[in-house]
Amino acid sequence: MNDRIARLRESLEEPLLVTNPTNVVYLVGFQSSNTVLLVDPERVQLFTDFRYLEAAHAVDGVEVVQTKRSIVADLAERLKGRIGFEAGNLSYAQFETLGSGGLELAPRTGQVERLRAVKDETELDAIRRACAITDRMYERLREVRFIGRTEREVSWDVTRLFHEEGGDGLAFESIVGAGPTGARPHARAGDRTIERSELVVIDAGCTVDGYASDYTRTFSTGPVDEQAREAYAVVLTAQETALDTIRAGLPAIEADAAARKVVEGSQFAGMFGHGLGHGLGLAVHEEPRMSTETSDILAPGNVVTVEPGVYVEGKFGVRIEDDVVVTADGIENMTGFTKDLLDVS
Amino acid sequence: MNDRIARLRESLEEPLLVTNPTNVVYLVGFQSSNTVLLVDPERVQLFTDFRYLEAAHAVDGVEVVQTKRSIVADLAERLKGRIGFEAGNLSYAQFETLGSGGLELAPRTGQVERLRAVKDETELDAIRRACAITDRMYERLREVRFIGRTEREVSWDVTRLFHEEGGDGLAFESIVGAGPTGARPHARAGDRTIERSELVVIDAGCTVDGYASDYTRTFSTGPVDEQAREAYAVVLTAQETALDTIRAGLPAIEADAAARKVVEGSQFAGMFGHGLGHGLGLAVHEEPRMSTETSDILAPGNVVTVEPGVYVEGKFGVRIEDDVVVTADGIENMTGFTKDLLDVS
Repeated sequence: MNDRIARLRESLEEPLLVTNPTNVVYLVGFQSSNTVLLVDPERVQLFTDFRYLEAAHAVDGVEVVQTKRSIVADLAERLKGRIGFEAGNLSYAQFETLGSGGLELAPRTGQVERLRAVKDETELDAIRRACAITDRMYERLREVRFIGRTEREVSWDVTRLFHEEGGDGLAFESIVGAGPTGARPHARAGDRTIERSELVVIDAGCTVDGYASDYTRTFSTGPVDEQAREAYAVVLTAQETALDTIRAGLPAIEADAAARKVVEGSQFAGMFGHGLGHGLGLAVHEEPRMSTETSDILAPGNVVTVEPGVYVEGKFGVRIEDDVVVTADGIENMTGFTKDLLDVS
Repeated sequence: MNDRIARLRESLEEPLLVTNPTNVVYLVGFQSSNTVLLVDPERVQLFTDFRYLEAAHAVDGVEVVQTKRSIVADLAERLKGRIGFEAGNLSYAQFETLGSGGLELAPRTGQVERLRAVKDETELDAIRRACAITDRMYERLREVRFIGRTEREVSWDVTRLFHEEGGDGLAFESIVGAGPTGARPHARAGDRTIERSELVVIDAGCTVDGYASDYTRTFSTGPVDEQAREAYAVVLTAQETALDTIRAGLPAIEADAAARKVVEGSQFAGMFGHGLGHGLGLAVHEEPRMSTETSDILAPGNVVTVEPGVYVEGKFGVRIEDDVVVTADGIENMTGFTKDLLDVS
């Protein structure tokens, strides 16, 4: 029997209905926009509709059950007794539908996500390969023209280079934020033309066997002013401080605090307006979280991004992000690409 | 005041908390992975966290309110009284959190989605442009090599050609299903090498200004057997029958039935295992639905896909899909690319 299912069963008080599609991928390797798994002590049932039936029959260790297109309504009639459900991954409307046939429903949170937070060797291998491709993408991106082209055009270069280097696809829509666009931490690539002597924030990742990489580097298009250079130095120090701090057993809030203290002690106090990082795996954002609000404790086998930033409104942004594995006494940094401020003019 | 907000207000019995990000884009043009809109009779409040604040301030006609990263927990403390929420777009866990501060919560469904189902001229223009790009992508795709390359490689050609023809991005991960892969209606492009004399199902779309196209064509890589040719002819007749049937006022279930009758009257009875089509706009799947289960009535300004298919397990699939606007007396077909069975060998 599948080891992941076995470990999940250990945490279950009642059969669990797994509705998060990424959790289904993790547990049984089946990808579909319309599938639900029911894990009970004796068996695993995979519910799906006609369109995915042939693929479902290729999945090991599950009983495939064909349902109507509206799986939840179908299950409301089909299932009996007490069942746990993923409260973060079932809409209120689906919850009402699921309970309409008399099922006793127990809200559960994070049972599969907690397993996913600790990667096994197969998973680490996929993420390492995604990181190696991302290193090569960034190496080649240094050679493309930035000045006089739009953020969107450079974003296409990122897409193309990931493909050429062997990525399965983009892990998320790439961010290319030049000058003031970079001051908006989650601005996408737009139609703004990149000018000389700007900072350009690039946040991009690819997938390999379903697993994501997620790096950020900040380039310059020629000499930038002292404020921009200092922001870069502060963010780099903050990032390296966090990397030196992270180890298994550390409350994630302390990793965030270590980086934040560097920014708060600089002229850029108050300008690091997001968390330090997040878990990375089948999803680009998963457990654990490293922020000012988290109660997560870092564990061996966690894969996290480490990405402090400074955002000067109307002017520029700087963010530097690596992907690391948490180990007993520190980290394995899977990111090979340089963190020097590179001039791509 | 924004016309869409005005029309939404007409349908509201209490202030509505809009948590579906696509609905937020539709109502106020703001795109973010972490934002919530509150529409009440006097004002529209846009809640978001630090990362999106600068962008939020550029939105017309809203009051921007900065919240913690956990918007729903923040709103539970901030809001009072009775509030409607999007029951299909709030998880059970978020519902519990939102109600924890004493808010009286009224589940609502589809209030914004019903508005979105009827497109205005600006929206139709964006979809027409996405379709024109898709026509050109398919024209050029005829010229690429299929035989001896993997589905995944052809899928990259689709990505590249959409980019070269001016699409903003892919509307969804393209499907390239050759031979038996094509028999699985939602199989993605895989590592299978495309062989001579196979049918290849290609289902792809791009976005323009946020709006999607979504076409399917089935090519052949050299002569195919009589069963495959007949399946193609049956699907084409089913599709043309549906296109002739669709007009405003028609129950969508009857459009589905018109196409289905053709397949059921052929040797491929029972092999059209999905609905006829779906609404298309900011989302690739939206209202109205055309299937055997729908109660939707077609209305002028609906944009729908029309995509019957036949799937012969282990052998091949055929699907032909156009994007059309529903009009008072019929349709405007936005799809220009030929529906002849094209040999791309």
